[in-house]
Amino acid sequence: MIIVIKANPTDAQVQEVEAAVRSFGYEPRTIRGVERTVVACIGDERKHHTLETLTILPQVEEVIPIQKKYKLVSRESRKGDSTISIGNLRIGNGTFHVVAGPCSVESLEQTIAAAKAVKRAGATLFRGGAYKPRTSPYDFQGKGREGLDYLKQAKAQTGLAIVTEVMAPEDVELVAAYTDVLQIGTRNAQNTPLLTACAESKKPVLLKRGFASTIQEWLLAAEYICAGGNEQVILCERGIRTFETATRNTLDVSAIAVAKKESHLPVFVDPSHAAGRVDMITPLARAGIAAGADGMLIEVHPNPAAAWSDGAQQLKPEQFEKLMKDIEPFVNVCGKKLAATG
Amino acid sequence: MIIVIKANPTDAQVQEVEAAVRSFGYEPRTIRGVERTVVACIGDERKHHTLETLTILPQVEEVIPIQKKYKLVSRESRKGDSTISIGNLRIGNGTFHVVAGPCSVESLEQTIAAAKAVKRAGATLFRGGAYKPRTSPYDFQGKGREGLDYLKQAKAQTGLAIVTEVMAPEDVELVAAYTDVLQIGTRNAQNTPLLTACAESKKPVLLKRGFASTIQEWLLAAEYICAGGNEQVILCERGIRTFETATRNTLDVSAIAVAKKESHLPVFVDPSHAAGRVDMITPLARAGIAAGADGMLIEVHPNPAAAWSDGAQQLKPEQFEKLMKDIEPFVNVCGKKLAATG
Amino acid sequence: MIIVIKANPTDAQVQEVEAAVRSFGYEPRTIRGVERTVVACIGDERKHHTLETLTILPQVEEVIPIQKKYKLVSRESRKGDSTISIGNLRIGNGTFHVVAGPCSVESLEQTIAAAKAVKRAGATLFRGGAYKPRTSPYDFQGKGREGLDYLKQAKAQTGLAIVTEVMAPEDVELVAAYTDVLQIGTRNAQNTPLLTACAESKKPVLLKRGFASTIQEWLLAAEYICAGGNEQVILCERGIRTFETATRNTLDVSAIAVAKKESHLPVFVDPSHAAGRVDMITPLARAGIAAGADGMLIEVHPNPAAAWSDGAQQLKPEQFEKLMKDIEPFVNVCGKKLAATG
Amino acid sequence: MIIVIKANPTDAQVQEVEAAVRSFGYEPRTIRGVERTVVACIGDERKHHTLETLTILPQVEEVIPIQKKYKLVSRESRKGDSTISIGNLRIGNGTFHVVAGPCSVESLEQTIAAAKAVKRAGATLFRGGAYKPRTSPYDFQGKGREGLDYLKQAKAQTGLAIVTEVMAPEDVELVAAYTDVLQIGTRNAQNTPLLTACAESKKPVLLKRGFASTIQEWLLAAEYICAGGNEQVILCERGIRTFETATRNTLDVSAIAVAKKESHLPVFVDPSHAAGRVDMITPLARAGIAAGADGMLIEVHPNPAAAWSDGAQQLKPEQFEKLMKDIEPFVNVCGKKLAATG
Repeated sequence: MIIVIKANPTDAQVQEVEAAVRSFGYEPRTIRGVERTVVACIGDERKHHTLETLTILPQVEEVIPIQKKYKLVSRESRKGDSTISIGNLRIGNGTFHVVAGPCSVESLEQTIAAAKAVKRAGATLFRGGAYKPRTSPYDFQGKGREGLDYLKQAKAQTGLAIVTEVMAPEDVELVAAYTDVLQIGTRNAQNTPLLTACAESKKPVLLKRGFASTIQEWLLAAEYICAGGNEQVILCERGIRTFETATRNTLDVSAIAVAKKESHLPVFVDPSHAAGRVDMITPLARAGIAAGADGMLIEVHPNPAAAWSDGAQQLKPEQFEKLMKDIEPFVNVCGKKLAATG
Repeated sequence: MIIVIKANPTDAQVQEVEAAVRSFGYEPRTIRGVERTVVACIGDERKHHTLETLTILPQVEEVIPIQKKYKLVSRESRKGDSTISIGNLRIGNGTFHVVAGPCSVESLEQTIAAAKAVKRAGATLFRGGAYKPRTSPYDFQGKGREGLDYLKQAKAQTGLAIVTEVMAPEDVELVAAYTDVLQIGTRNAQNTPLLTACAESKKPVLLKRGFASTIQEWLLAAEYICAGGNEQVILCERGIRTFETATRNTLDVSAIAVAKKESHLPVFVDPSHAAGRVDMITPLARAGIAAGADGMLIEVHPNPAAAWSDGAQQLKPEQFEKLMKDIEPFVNVCGKKLAATG
Repeated sequence: MIIVIKANPTDAQVQEVEAAVRSFGYEPRTIRGVERTVVACIGDERKHHTLETLTILPQVEEVIPIQKKYKLVSRESRKGDSTISIGNLRIGNGTFHVVAGPCSVESLEQTIAAAKAVKRAGATLFRGGAYKPRTSPYDFQGKGREGLDYLKQAKAQTGLAIVTEVMAPEDVELVAAYTDVLQIGTRNAQNTPLLTACAESKKPVLLKRGFASTIQEWLLAAEYICAGGNEQVILCERGIRTFETATRNTLDVSAIAVAKKESHLPVFVDPSHAAGRVDMITPLARAGIAAGADGMLIEVHPNPAAAWSDGAQQLKPEQFEKLMKDIEPFVNVCGKKLAATG
Repeated sequence: MIIVIKANPTDAQVQEVEAAVRSFGYEPRTIRGVERTVVACIGDERKHHTLETLTILPQVEEVIPIQKKYKLVSRESRKGDSTISIGNLRIGNGTFHVVAGPCSVESLEQTIAAAKAVKRAGATLFRGGAYKPRTSPYDFQGKGREGLDYLKQAKAQTGLAIVTEVMAPEDVELVAAYTDVLQIGTRNAQNTPLLTACAESKKPVLLKRGFASTIQEWLLAAEYICAGGNEQVILCERGIRTFETATRNTLDVSAIAVAKKESHLPVFVDPSHAAGRVDMITPLARAGIAAGADGMLIEVHPNPAAAWSDGAQQLKPEQFEKLMKDIEPFVNVCGKKLAATG
């Protein structure tokens, strides 16, 4: 930490800061500059109390942390890229995986139809929501346990690995029994009991970035899971909330590149939720791949116009097939290759 | 809903939209304008499927919802202001209540000292976190159950009603047994299983606005609790995330005024989390009161410099006493009066 | 400046940074910590080249400026509050001034009617736009020079000081000849040739905050005017752009309090542009006053429903009269008093 | 426009709205729904007064514009893509152009060195700022007219077309005499006198998106130029201001795709200003290309560590050469080809 002291402090004021720094277990080194005096504090910021509290001293102008708070997820912990194993699939090793399926599972028929369609087009993982976080209590809240059964049957019939969202810590064990990957949604990006419960499940986790999380907060959410003993985390950028309303969210492609640089974990892109509109999914998918994504997540529904949720952003099977063709050259020029199905 | 059709549609394209609208249970009324054709759809948007899904039709430019999604929390449901009862206290009836206490409860001594101090200065409710949502897994996570005990003893010794945060649905029953008001924090503003569990508890709920929630989303979160059978909800504005970094969050005083206009529920202001710095708490408290708040929440710690969390924004007891004096005239010119203790 | 070096640098890497720091005229002081090495750079950041450029060295993680870039506008330059003189009026000395009038001046009749109405209700300055910055080229662009004439006649008939916006450097001389205060609008908050031209005019300047300017950028815009030899600057907070759409902008009351703390310049609040809707103007005006504003700016039109611009946020004269009564007790409890007219 | 009336209006209230609508030259069509009554207003929104002003009627809940305000820049005006001619270069016809050069021109030597370096690596246009919009008055403000001379000599020696920023309407004629393309910077995105002056110059204009402009506002800024008689506009996305601080701005790749869909104008991407850091330029350049950009703008300096402005985001010549190689395959898979030099 660096503590910046206001202009022209008295010696006593500087000494008070130094004493406070020492009382927290850090060693102060004071440097008097032309207009400001700074106290550099030596000590591991993760092992001691934060010094930000010292801003309450009247002579302190600012306390600046200089050490990153995440450790296990960082490149300083592991230089190479992590690979996550899901059955026979390997995520993050240069193959590009596509997770596809409907926003919500609505019926067995719809689920199976969607799973077969996305498999045919080249997806290697199937997604579908059984527990749905909806803005309004009057919107469809998901089929719950029954929906998990649909997913299980979809896996039985297609062999696709299953990704589904879990919303409450007490559901983690049940959901984990039915699925290959636990998804933590954007609204739960800082739901620490849920992060911890997913850590304990030892299942791979697809961690969406919170729609208003900084990249640092997103990596710290991943750190919760890793620190809980589960390093099988896939990060997923899905757009952030900004002033722009032309798209539902603003896809932050920089976040993909920054996360790849800061962390060894694989990073996926979710153009469906970023765009919120079908016509923007292809360019956003391409942009996400070009920024370095290791995989992507796409919403596909057998009949989007009749979807029970998020119809405006779900692709028809034939649109998804076309998307898969449209992205392949971009995957290839990134030096990756599309994962093969079956 | 209003469906806007692109320029110069064919008759068949318009009829396709009309048929789709009818298939969802609405009645279409089409109006051809100079540059755009619009289809007004008659039907209760809360009882039918959303039509937003129709944006996937190529001739549809936009689907515009015109009905508000919240009902129970709205002024259309209840004209007068709701009053929430907490023991002998009445919230929202023209008395102004102050909830004060430390960010975290750290020890029995610290808890009791804080409770006595805030009572002496005029607070009518005591707050303190036993379960803490922290950005980093390496930060102090709260004393948990032991902390609930401290709060219980603080109530026994001071008579103050207790407000504390609950983070997981499975903790609601336990926390409800120890506290008078359940707080739902900003990171859980759209944690629907938690909203539903708090509804079932029948305890009064202090619902913080999500730091990136729109006012509509905040009111819909309250609607979840009301729709779950618990209308004892206090809304609390605590600042939103913007590009400005001089304060930790940007206090959105308009949200207080808009929420008071749209909803019959009481609205509190939390200047401590909005400011994130001690020197801005008084002006933000005054501004929140002036915008129409029914109460406020302030972090107070017997010794902020030694606080285990958020030290930079917690007031010392003597600063809090001064704040109470500073705000009283503002409460009075709003036609309210500060709640009397004891 | 503080330069943060990545983990485990070699001696040569540290020396390279130190040499670069010296080459820019600063003196480096290096401190090796547990996980990071930092180089504190001694020297006046306003007189030397910025060191941020050193982030291009691979061993540099971050360069952190610690000195504020503004000087003349800061409390470090002048402890007491500045007072701006406009004819007989004194701004910033504890009297609270209200600037009121229509968004645009549309005709002589409308201008005079508006000026008389706002004077009657207690405004001490009259505003009206002759040059209008509009989002669309098809919207009304202002009456230009003819509008300046209307304003001159309004002053002749009411004695009110005139505030009007100037948009281009080459118009400053003309506009300055017709007005008492030059307004720089939110879209021109970083239009440096305009800031400089207004500095040269030596007229008082009402400087709106850019709708996406940080407080630091806003103060630096004021610094441009002061550094150009004109210290008669009134800051005006008018709302920032955020994700919230219930109001046209989000009034940032913290910015009023922070600007008052950081700077000696008077700070006004503009609830009309922040709210963008008539029903929110009173609460936002009160909140702005409570946060410490020295004056306010309100749009008033003799017949808002027929206004040529921004009709939705302009008050009718009788609404403005009511507003003046509604705010007076808030001005008084802040220890200020409403400026008396005539 | 659609006017939404509050629940349960009286007939008189509806008639008052209808009469107001007619008085503005629109024809009202009223539809009574279950919970809301809406009045659709027939008439060209660009030719009549806006009806948004009607929100001041107490029975009106909302006024919703349904027509886009831009016309000349839209695909409704011209189906195919526009091509802009700059000397022998054609922009927007499937060749991908790179504009490169230093943030500021600092000396003749630095300018010539930069121009030669970027030409060698494949840029077809040379950029360099002679007039610099800086946040602080104490930062380097550009070499002005002398800088324009450097640019002229750079063109003479390399044959590269010149792009440079103009900041004040009165400078447009001078700058236009020295340059091939006028750049309007992000801080001037809504500086309407400057937009109009650039329109009159008849020079091609590179129009940066405002860092807080919506896509609609950006297109309307372009509409100002086109409506002023100059359709040679190149749009340029350069990142928007959000809460994220890991990059200087957040590159909004969706805006590239949306602008390409809405408008026939060519769209460039500026990864340098979006990233604000050298290590993120390649992924952002690739992402922008993948989203559909027709060209890009990159800051390159012979010696970034000694740059007088924005050193942290300028590439060295050898880094720029590498970038050109890194992007070529992405340009190609988009079905475009890199423009050939000389």
